[in-house]
Amino acid sequence: MITITLVGTGNVAKHLFDAFLALNNVTVIQVVGRNKKALTHFEKHAPTTTDFKKINPSDVLIIAISDDSINTVSQLFTNYRGLVCHTSGSVPLNDLKSNRKGVFYPLQTFTVGKKIDFKTVPICIEAKNKEDEKLLERLAKTLSKKVYHITSEQRKPLHLAAVFVNNFTNHLYHIGENICTEHKIPFDLLKALIMETAHKIQTLSPKESQTGPAKRNDTRTIEEHLNQIQDKDQYEIYGLLTQSIQKIYGKKL
Amino acid sequence: MITITLVGTGNVAKHLFDAFLALNNVTVIQVVGRNKKALTHFEKHAPTTTDFKKINPSDVLIIAISDDSINTVSQLFTNYRGLVCHTSGSVPLNDLKSNRKGVFYPLQTFTVGKKIDFKTVPICIEAKNKEDEKLLERLAKTLSKKVYHITSEQRKPLHLAAVFVNNFTNHLYHIGENICTEHKIPFDLLKALIMETAHKIQTLSPKESQTGPAKRNDTRTIEEHLNQIQDKDQYEIYGLLTQSIQKIYGKKL
Repeated sequence: MITITLVGTGNVAKHLFDAFLALNNVTVIQVVGRNKKALTHFEKHAPTTTDFKKINPSDVLIIAISDDSINTVSQLFTNYRGLVCHTSGSVPLNDLKSNRKGVFYPLQTFTVGKKIDFKTVPICIEAKNKEDEKLLERLAKTLSKKVYHITSEQRKPLHLAAVFVNNFTNHLYHIGENICTEHKIPFDLLKALIMETAHKIQTLSPKESQTGPAKRNDTRTIEEHLNQIQDKDQYEIYGLLTQSIQKIYGKKL
Repeated sequence: MITITLVGTGNVAKHLFDAFLALNNVTVIQVVGRNKKALTHFEKHAPTTTDFKKINPSDVLIIAISDDSINTVSQLFTNYRGLVCHTSGSVPLNDLKSNRKGVFYPLQTFTVGKKIDFKTVPICIEAKNKEDEKLLERLAKTLSKKVYHITSEQRKPLHLAAVFVNNFTNHLYHIGENICTEHKIPFDLLKALIMETAHKIQTLSPKESQTGPAKRNDTRTIEEHLNQIQDKDQYEIYGLLTQSIQKIYGKKL
């Protein structure tokens, strides 16, 4: 049995909590948050407190809060006897001010009210010492089939890559929606394409999957597209991404 | 029964052919292509020819070839009695030189050897006259549950939007992979995130789905990311997409 204290009441905290609830060999013994109302989600299934002085001992204390606050909040746990870890992709291990420290980073985008199958979520773990790394590995494996040992140095570029494939990709979806709306076309038309684009690279490399006018260096279509675009950002993004693709696949001169 | 002549032997032609094969009320009576070898895929299940003078009459002749050649090839069918249509997202209806003309555009990315469930593929149809539009609608509905009447004027921005959500998104996946490779991180780590990012916008709007440092205006993380990037294209794309996101969600000053 692994006992958990969960610090934080946000999106990641909720998703982790719900996932731990379903397990037999893990118990969340306490959820800690400043905001009493935000604790409502948790209090039916675990003891909660708003008082950081009333935290009970556990094997692993998980700080699932915004990146900016991790350093400050971790200072409250300098003498905590259990393993203290955070869940962030961009905060180094050593930002934690506790003696025993680790990282438990589920590499996924979590949406309020949308259940995630944790079995497929990669969990990136790191700890200051070997024993704690084993403990985190054991915990991660109760949740997911995909557990990776990732150092703070690797986690930085990994988080950067995640921004490209998640945040920036979603922005491209948004641009696609805006173009549709502007021309009274249902955005639904693009949804199967979006799913298939993501599905393709599960088995093919993105380089093999690339298609489109930029790859073919189809300058007529590229020009027609650029001529259509009214929005300055869309125009620049189209131009920059097209050039970047052309460099990879060789612009025919 | 609808009879089909298929002109072209590429990726779209193959996928359409395989999908039609499975239907009872549609028959491909002939497949036409210049390249004899490329006809191999088809000849087990339908008559084929490399001779454009030996084309038999059918209800619908589908030209599934590269955009650049549609206009030229369609000139061979000026007197065709059936409905002549192309499958392109970017070629206007009137580029077809036949008397009866239409567009049968399946909005999907087709990969060699990767089967597609046509039931979920939006098919965008257009025809010069009402009768032909009805015929195309009937044909499209045999394949897909999602049939849309889209004019040439709408198809232009739709194709542009498809480039953003498919070609450009795939390029972001490629950048993500490059960052991983450079730091000896398996690209597999990002695959669940990529699927979930696409899955999210099936039910939420992209605007609601947006997350990340640009949306939060988390300038510290943005700067750390920019400092990490060595590649010029990656740097510019990061900067431009970040600014574009910040404009939407309001940069806190």
